[in-house]
Amino acid sequence: MALRVGFVGLGAMGLPMARNLHRAGLLAGSWNRTAAKAEALAAETGTTAYPTPAALAAECDLVVSCVSADEDLLALVTALLPGLRAGSAVADCSTVAAATARTAAAMLAEAGVDFLDCPVSGGTEGAVAGTLSIMAGGDAAVLERVRPALEAMGRSITHMGPVGAGQAAKATNQIMVAGINQAVTEALAFGQAQGLPMDRLIAALEQGAAGNWFLGKRGRTMIRGEFPLGFKVALHAKDLEICRRMAAELGVKLPVVEMTLLHYARLPAASADEDISALFRLKSDMFSASDD
Amino acid sequence: MALRVGFVGLGAMGLPMARNLHRAGLLAGSWNRTAAKAEALAAETGTTAYPTPAALAAECDLVVSCVSADEDLLALVTALLPGLRAGSAVADCSTVAAATARTAAAMLAEAGVDFLDCPVSGGTEGAVAGTLSIMAGGDAAVLERVRPALEAMGRSITHMGPVGAGQAAKATNQIMVAGINQAVTEALAFGQAQGLPMDRLIAALEQGAAGNWFLGKRGRTMIRGEFPLGFKVALHAKDLEICRRMAAELGVKLPVVEMTLLHYARLPAASADEDISALFRLKSDMFSASDD
Repeated sequence: MALRVGFVGLGAMGLPMARNLHRAGLLAGSWNRTAAKAEALAAETGTTAYPTPAALAAECDLVVSCVSADEDLLALVTALLPGLRAGSAVADCSTVAAATARTAAAMLAEAGVDFLDCPVSGGTEGAVAGTLSIMAGGDAAVLERVRPALEAMGRSITHMGPVGAGQAAKATNQIMVAGINQAVTEALAFGQAQGLPMDRLIAALEQGAAGNWFLGKRGRTMIRGEFPLGFKVALHAKDLEICRRMAAELGVKLPVVEMTLLHYARLPAASADEDISALFRLKSDMFSASDD
Repeated sequence: MALRVGFVGLGAMGLPMARNLHRAGLLAGSWNRTAAKAEALAAETGTTAYPTPAALAAECDLVVSCVSADEDLLALVTALLPGLRAGSAVADCSTVAAATARTAAAMLAEAGVDFLDCPVSGGTEGAVAGTLSIMAGGDAAVLERVRPALEAMGRSITHMGPVGAGQAAKATNQIMVAGINQAVTEALAFGQAQGLPMDRLIAALEQGAAGNWFLGKRGRTMIRGEFPLGFKVALHAKDLEICRRMAAELGVKLPVVEMTLLHYARLPAASADEDISALFRLKSDMFSASDD
C-alpha cells in the first residue's frame, strides 16, 4: 500500500516539495502555521488541510516537515506526538543542529515512532523540479521504508549515517555555499569594476575551473542588482550559526563561516529577506565607495 | 594557408596545449627555457626545436606563449622581437597583470606585430582535453585571424575587450577559484571531522547548490591527503598578488584574496609545488590540533 504522507511547513521550499508528493500520489494533506497556505494547497490538490499537527499525524504513515528553526522542530514534534501512531515515521527536511535532530529522535522513539533527519540542498529550483539532494541520517531500514516519498522530492538520496549525520552533511553543504557565495560575489564585483562585459565573462567562467552552480543560477541576476529567492540571507545566517556551534564543539573557528556571518551582518536590514547573492551589494559597494 | 604556430613555454599547461596545436596540424615547433623539453616535443611530433625565440619567431605567423611571470613575458617579447615579422602575432596564454599585457602589446606594436592576451582556465585537465576556457583581450580582427589556433586548445574562446581585458577576466577567475578553494577545503575538513562518509558526502554535495568543478575534480584526492597537480599553490599565490594590485589601484582590499594569500603563506614550504587543494592541510589541521 502506498505511504500516506502528511506535510508540515509550506514555505518557499516546503510548498513545491508537497506538490511533488501530491504528483507522486502520496500526499494525504498538510498542516501549516498560517492555515491559509494549507487550505490553498488543499483546494489545489484535493488533499486535506488538517486543523492540528496531531490530526495530521493520526492519518499518516509518514510526516514530512520543513520548518525554519531548531525550536520550531521541537515544538512540532511535541504537537505531533498526541496523534502519532507507533510504527509511523517523521522525516524532517529542515536544517537544524545535529544535536536537535537527536533530541527529536529521542522524543519520538519513546512513542515508537521512527525519525530521519533529511535536510536538502538544491534551492527552490530543485524543490520545484523534484531534483533536491537529500542527506539522510537515521536507521537504514526506515530510510528504505520512506524512500518513495523522498524520491518524489529529490533526485539524489544519500544515507549519511545515524540520526544527526544528515544535519552534519547539510552543515558541510552550508559552509561550502558560504564560501562559494564569497567567491562569486567578490569576483564578479571585481570584474564589473574592471569594466568587463559581464554576461560574456560569466559564460566564460562557467566553462573553466571556477565553474559552479551558484554562478550559473545567481551570477546574471546579482550583476543587475537583483537578488530573487533562492535562499534567504537570514536563513543561511541561521544555518551558519549552527555550523559555528558545531565547529566550536570541536574547538575550531572556521574562517569562511566567521567572515560570512560578519559580512551578512553588515548588509542592509532589508537584505535579510533577499537571496544570499545579496552579498554582492557589500562587495560592489567596496568598489563604488572607492570612487568617491 | 594554415597558420604556422610556434609555441613557447612547455610547462604543465603549455606542453599539452602545444600537443593540441600539433594535432590540429598547426604547430611548426617550439622553444623552451629548458631545451630538453622542446627537443622531446620535437622528437614526439616531428616539429622543430628552435635554438632561440627569435629563430622561432622568424618562421611563424603566430607565437603562442605560456610562461610563469610578468617579467618572463616581457623578457620573451624582447627575445622574440629580432625575429618577428610585421603582420605576425603573439597570443600570450600566461597569467600576468593587465598592465603587463598592455606593455607587451606596445613593445610589439612598434614592430607591426599584433598582440592578444589569452589567459586560460580549465586546469591541466582542460589543457590536455583541449577544452580550456580562453579569455581574450585585443583587436577583434586579430582574434578572428588566430582563432583556429585558439580553437585547437580551447572549447570556449571569449573576446573580453581591448588588450588587458583577457587578463582582467582571468584575475576575476582567479579570485573566484580562491574563494571556491576556501569553500571546498573548509567544508570538507569540517565534514571529515564530523565523521561523515566522505565519498558519499562529496557525491551528494555535487548534486546540490554547492556543486562546483573543483569539488568534483579535487574533493576525492584532498580528503586522502593527496594534492596532485592541477595548479600550483605558488602560481595561484602569484596570480592573487596580481589581483591584489589590480584591486589596490581601485583603492580596495578584497577579503577572499587577502585571506587566501594569508592561508597559502601558512602552508608548509613544500606545498608551494602542490595543487592549490593543499589548502585542505591547513583546514584539517585546525580540527586535529583541537584534538590535543
